[in-house]
Amino acid sequence: MSRFLSARFQALEAYVPGEQPQDMQYIKLNTNESPFPPAPAVREALNAAEIDRLNLYPDPEGRALREKLADFYGVGVENVFLANGSDELLNFFFMAFCDRDRPVAYPAVSYGFYPVYASLYGLPAREVPLREGFRLEPADYCGIGKNVVIANPNAPTGRAIGAADIARIAESNPDHVVLIDEAYIDFGGESCLPLTKKYENLLVCQTFSKFRSLAGGRLGFAVGSPALIRDLDRIRYSTNSYNINRLTMAAAIATIDSHGYYAANSRLIQENRAYTAAALDALGFETLPSLANFIFTRCPQVEGRRLYRELKARGVLVRHWDKAEIADWCRVTIGSRGQMDVFLEKVREIVKEAAHADS
Amino acid sequence: MSRFLSARFQALEAYVPGEQPQDMQYIKLNTNESPFPPAPAVREALNAAEIDRLNLYPDPEGRALREKLADFYGVGVENVFLANGSDELLNFFFMAFCDRDRPVAYPAVSYGFYPVYASLYGLPAREVPLREGFRLEPADYCGIGKNVVIANPNAPTGRAIGAADIARIAESNPDHVVLIDEAYIDFGGESCLPLTKKYENLLVCQTFSKFRSLAGGRLGFAVGSPALIRDLDRIRYSTNSYNINRLTMAAAIATIDSHGYYAANSRLIQENRAYTAAALDALGFETLPSLANFIFTRCPQVEGRRLYRELKARGVLVRHWDKAEIADWCRVTIGSRGQMDVFLEKVREIVKEAAHADS
Repeated sequence: MSRFLSARFQALEAYVPGEQPQDMQYIKLNTNESPFPPAPAVREALNAAEIDRLNLYPDPEGRALREKLADFYGVGVENVFLANGSDELLNFFFMAFCDRDRPVAYPAVSYGFYPVYASLYGLPAREVPLREGFRLEPADYCGIGKNVVIANPNAPTGRAIGAADIARIAESNPDHVVLIDEAYIDFGGESCLPLTKKYENLLVCQTFSKFRSLAGGRLGFAVGSPALIRDLDRIRYSTNSYNINRLTMAAAIATIDSHGYYAANSRLIQENRAYTAAALDALGFETLPSLANFIFTRCPQVEGRRLYRELKARGVLVRHWDKAEIADWCRVTIGSRGQMDVFLEKVREIVKEAAHADS
Repeated sequence: MSRFLSARFQALEAYVPGEQPQDMQYIKLNTNESPFPPAPAVREALNAAEIDRLNLYPDPEGRALREKLADFYGVGVENVFLANGSDELLNFFFMAFCDRDRPVAYPAVSYGFYPVYASLYGLPAREVPLREGFRLEPADYCGIGKNVVIANPNAPTGRAIGAADIARIAESNPDHVVLIDEAYIDFGGESCLPLTKKYENLLVCQTFSKFRSLAGGRLGFAVGSPALIRDLDRIRYSTNSYNINRLTMAAAIATIDSHGYYAANSRLIQENRAYTAAALDALGFETLPSLANFIFTRCPQVEGRRLYRELKARGVLVRHWDKAEIADWCRVTIGSRGQMDVFLEKVREIVKEAAHADS
């Protein structure tokens, strides 16, 4: 770091995103992208006329897209907030609603960015342990008296809780904001988005990066009470008012209009998830029940880091963390059937070699 | 605001961007956009194959674009930082380098976002008054012993200082970061970017939104010493690691490759700037000497707010602020010759009516 950096950041450990190697083509099962391209309507929306208007600023209110999302989810436009990816939204949440007097709680095993935000803003944070089998126990958050952030389904486990559980958490923490990060909700989970009408302290965050095949476009959004949305907007207008670019807004509108295409893709991913889990099961792997577009799995013979490395050497990227509680495990994005077959083929090779080395 | 918002933001006044009305077509001379579309190569770069890859995350390091910029400016890739618009970059600067022990100074009349960042982070800020005629006196910043932010050319005045002046400011504040915001440098000003090789405390920030006709794409960048760039990256990786979308990176690379197109557009804008200033001069207006793609002007007969309103009623948007020191003035973006002719025609009408009402 330079000698100019503020002292408050000298111990900050930044988030480390999944590797995005530019050197060669991998089968990328490491950052939970969709294996499918955007809908054809997205290509049509990003036409020459739209490109020729790039000299003009985007609408800082993102009105057209917010109306489209509001209509799709049956809420008002004043309930919708747009961000340059859901990470930006999470950043705004931690900044706006948390401080020394308003601590935050989140699962001890969850999205790795939450502790980074807590560190960034010097927040008192409680990391709530998961239960046996990485199960998130809703009762652990009821009446906790802190702002709460829960990824549902949780990452990297894929395990989900129901909307009724979230209702209890929101209801029992009326003086704190409960943020549910539904980045992976559209692969079989139950969204609590409709509950934002009932609980003014409930904020639901989603992304276009997974189910909607738009990770390259950077778009996240939140749904919540108008007062919460206005607070987020105050922070947005005090950091980066034109945060969403024109092409992303046009692409996102076309995306919402193509819901059927994405829903069909999600069904395929759910089929491939079951297929992959069953195949791993047959090899003796332990795989958590997942409602996301990834699975969290461990091999009895090959430890997590080695499995990750052996797969990478064979052209398949999955995600592994050295953190003790999960060091045995790998997170594997569910891609197309072809991708999963290559993954499984490589896994079989690795398991076989490990067995051979042992004998 | 909601009752959940952190107490530290309760007095925060967010930035107010120039209006972007969606209701009707105006001649937009209020947000300093280029009147010219992006170069044809940008359209070619944003092709179907590129759109079909939007399911994949962008390179969080933005390597290809940073290499392109480094090559263009004759610096190393480790000297270049990318942001989702230069506002995001300014936000990172205020966050990373300023705190209670590291105060910041900027001109009392300048880009309206600087005081917003200072307020957002609770910073001690010194607003340095401009001199007669809104002239920025470099000596006022020499040895000031604070971080310094100067827009050069300054906004909304359009007045510029030379690179030698900036060298003196950087040299005389060796323990503080000097950020020069060159959003408008490519319309006749002298960039101090090459000085970043000499001064490790000098950071230069530019944008693709003005000269490069890409306001809708959201891209800003900074050039500075590797240690400063690493600090900015630490903050970026702790807030939003994938901050630049794929299409913007592809568009920006094509933009750099089309430099001649943009340079020719800039020459036209500089001609139109002289033409407009001369025409206003003939009407008795006072116009500051500008090296930006806008002029700051006042009419002796019609006060600033009224001129803005009368122009808006006639379909021409310019920018006006109620702030006392500049309330007499309007900032007028320099557009195409046709746009400036309509602007001048409406101005003549308004001046004539004002004279008629007075008599």
